[in-house]
Amino acid sequence: MWAELLPIGRSSASGGYRRYAWTGADTECRAWFRAQAEARGLRYEVDRNGNQWAWLGDPEAGDAVVTGSHLDSVPDGGAFDGPLGIVSSFAALDELRAREADVGKPLGIVNFGDEEGARFGLACVGSRLAAGQLTPEQAHRLTDADGITLPRAMEAAGHDPEAIGPDPGRLARIGAFVELHVEQGRALDLSGDAVGVASAIWPHGRWRFDFRGEANHAGTTRLADRRDPMLPYAETVLAARREARLAGAVATFGKIAVEPNGVNAIPSLVRGWLDSRAPDQDTLDTVVNGVEQAAREYAAAHGVDLGVVRESFTPVVEFDHALRDELARILGSDTDLKVPVLGTGAGHDAGILSGTVPTAMLFVRNPTGVSHSPAEFAAEDDCVAGVLALADVLEGLARR
Amino acid sequence: MWAELLPIGRSSASGGYRRYAWTGADTECRAWFRAQAEARGLRYEVDRNGNQWAWLGDPEAGDAVVTGSHLDSVPDGGAFDGPLGIVSSFAALDELRAREADVGKPLGIVNFGDEEGARFGLACVGSRLAAGQLTPEQAHRLTDADGITLPRAMEAAGHDPEAIGPDPGRLARIGAFVELHVEQGRALDLSGDAVGVASAIWPHGRWRFDFRGEANHAGTTRLADRRDPMLPYAETVLAARREARLAGAVATFGKIAVEPNGVNAIPSLVRGWLDSRAPDQDTLDTVVNGVEQAAREYAAAHGVDLGVVRESFTPVVEFDHALRDELARILGSDTDLKVPVLGTGAGHDAGILSGTVPTAMLFVRNPTGVSHSPAEFAAEDDCVAGVLALADVLEGLARR
Repeated sequence: MWAELLPIGRSSASGGYRRYAWTGADTECRAWFRAQAEARGLRYEVDRNGNQWAWLGDPEAGDAVVTGSHLDSVPDGGAFDGPLGIVSSFAALDELRAREADVGKPLGIVNFGDEEGARFGLACVGSRLAAGQLTPEQAHRLTDADGITLPRAMEAAGHDPEAIGPDPGRLARIGAFVELHVEQGRALDLSGDAVGVASAIWPHGRWRFDFRGEANHAGTTRLADRRDPMLPYAETVLAARREARLAGAVATFGKIAVEPNGVNAIPSLVRGWLDSRAPDQDTLDTVVNGVEQAAREYAAAHGVDLGVVRESFTPVVEFDHALRDELARILGSDTDLKVPVLGTGAGHDAGILSGTVPTAMLFVRNPTGVSHSPAEFAAEDDCVAGVLALADVLEGLARR
Repeated sequence: MWAELLPIGRSSASGGYRRYAWTGADTECRAWFRAQAEARGLRYEVDRNGNQWAWLGDPEAGDAVVTGSHLDSVPDGGAFDGPLGIVSSFAALDELRAREADVGKPLGIVNFGDEEGARFGLACVGSRLAAGQLTPEQAHRLTDADGITLPRAMEAAGHDPEAIGPDPGRLARIGAFVELHVEQGRALDLSGDAVGVASAIWPHGRWRFDFRGEANHAGTTRLADRRDPMLPYAETVLAARREARLAGAVATFGKIAVEPNGVNAIPSLVRGWLDSRAPDQDTLDTVVNGVEQAAREYAAAHGVDLGVVRESFTPVVEFDHALRDELARILGSDTDLKVPVLGTGAGHDAGILSGTVPTAMLFVRNPTGVSHSPAEFAAEDDCVAGVLALADVLEGLARR
């Protein structure tokens, strides 16, 4: 199952994956999902927002138990972030059949579209649309770096963009959603556990900082006559690290766009994106306000204009406490696993759904702690432990 | 003459010019040059390196007086940098004919190809090849941001890339080369003069700083576990400004490339280009060594690897003293112009040729001091003064 999926969308240059929503690589991944569903005799469907579903039993019966994740990737991402959850879902279903488990409720596997937001700049588009957290009008305005809009990209991949929108009926038939994911950090590695249960997703957001100065010749313009936006940008990068360290949060400038971006030209514009996350809202506000205030002072000192735009924001997500405790009970009683409960700085479709559906997450140990990179990793034994834990959880929830 | 040239390669978004070597806009500019030559009954030719020439008289006679500049631009450059020199050359020739001046020597106008280096990263490719300062093998390896090599780009524009190489015979027939250029600074504006003569071009170079860290998830990677190359890059940007200020030089990070350049990914690579120039070689060495040493310390502190590559370097260019003095004499005796003598931080084809041919430059006042930007400017009266000064210089040199 892994072997067929591994080569799709892999860059020979970086060894990383470039599976962006509604591209050829994404279409290949989706064909793989459909083939897996059909090979198992599952009922296959695509919802109005392009999310793929595979069903054992009739979803119309309601109170369904659903698992799944996503197949798209960040630029040069790793093999596990997303696909591990999908592959483990099919494997857990195979395990339940091998056990001849008594599954009373409909069981579903879902592949949410465009989770990473690598192409259109907004994460979790498939689940946001379904949950009504993104309107069709907003989605229709999303545009990629080549100027292609989301509707055009959907059409090119054979999906009707006019169909997108909230899907409350479908979500109402779900009794519990559990997403298995490779851990994006080293907490399980440090605690010595193969599998853990998520407690909450930190609040997080993305802010765009536009430093506008004046383009000029890098050789002939006196330092005193310059309005070089690269300088306050650099100072702001360092301020972000400082504020995050003081607050126990994280803050990152990982994306930049410079105009005209010529070796011998002082830039007219340096645009940097801040990604920041913290254990709670107050801490996040402290960090971001601190960075913005510092940036304004730096910009003014260099005669540079600054605009700051919050491009996205997700408040803290506390996963359903009853479901979380049930997972810990199922895993604690049926196996010898300890199941540590972890917070996480990463966003997930599970976080989007948690406002509508009782939702939980399982993490599988990642000894490198690295994710969004080809160095992301999970050992085979840990992946098997993840599949067995997911099978236990699905069986336990389907029997309730 | 101006009116036909002005719309070519202009971006409606920025108002700046995007005339990159061997592109459609460049081809249109070159067609304009040929039409100007032919309309005046001048002998038109393209040399082996793609530089265009227009001749009054027979260049084979030798001891020719040549003027000219370039028509290509930096990204979103202004209208004057390059084209002012070409337009003034044709206008000065018209002026000499109107005067019925006695021109004993062959007079040439040249448009050097790819002066700005905006597409292939190396400035003055046309004049470097002719002067033997760039070998055909080196030129064949130049590649643009889309992976197109210089030979493929030349072929696409109809020039044979196998023909390129040193052209000593052609250069030996030139007795003097004078380039007129818009000033890229405010010295003439501050001194109140319309036209000046160049004394020297500062030594300058471009260095590529590759900071290599580790790509990782911006939300889940603890600060302590990061190897984020954006941080030492930012510290190095600030160090460059500090070193330049202390030394009385200039240093600029105006171009950057980040991988994977995702909002939620710690970069694996931050590549920044340093452009630095100083009045003399020792000062330049002090600045660049200071920046590199600081960058190495910052990189080490963040667990980031640093590679520094000098991509280009041009030593100080002292223009031919006898020719410079002759220009000052011609302009001082024939007109009431004061002719200040200026150093400049900008590179020019005249700087490349000065190792082979007696070379001089005239500058025309730029009240904004800005160049490489749409704000670059010269007033009509000053342009006329430049044309008359150039006509005087050509006439005086042709009579020697």
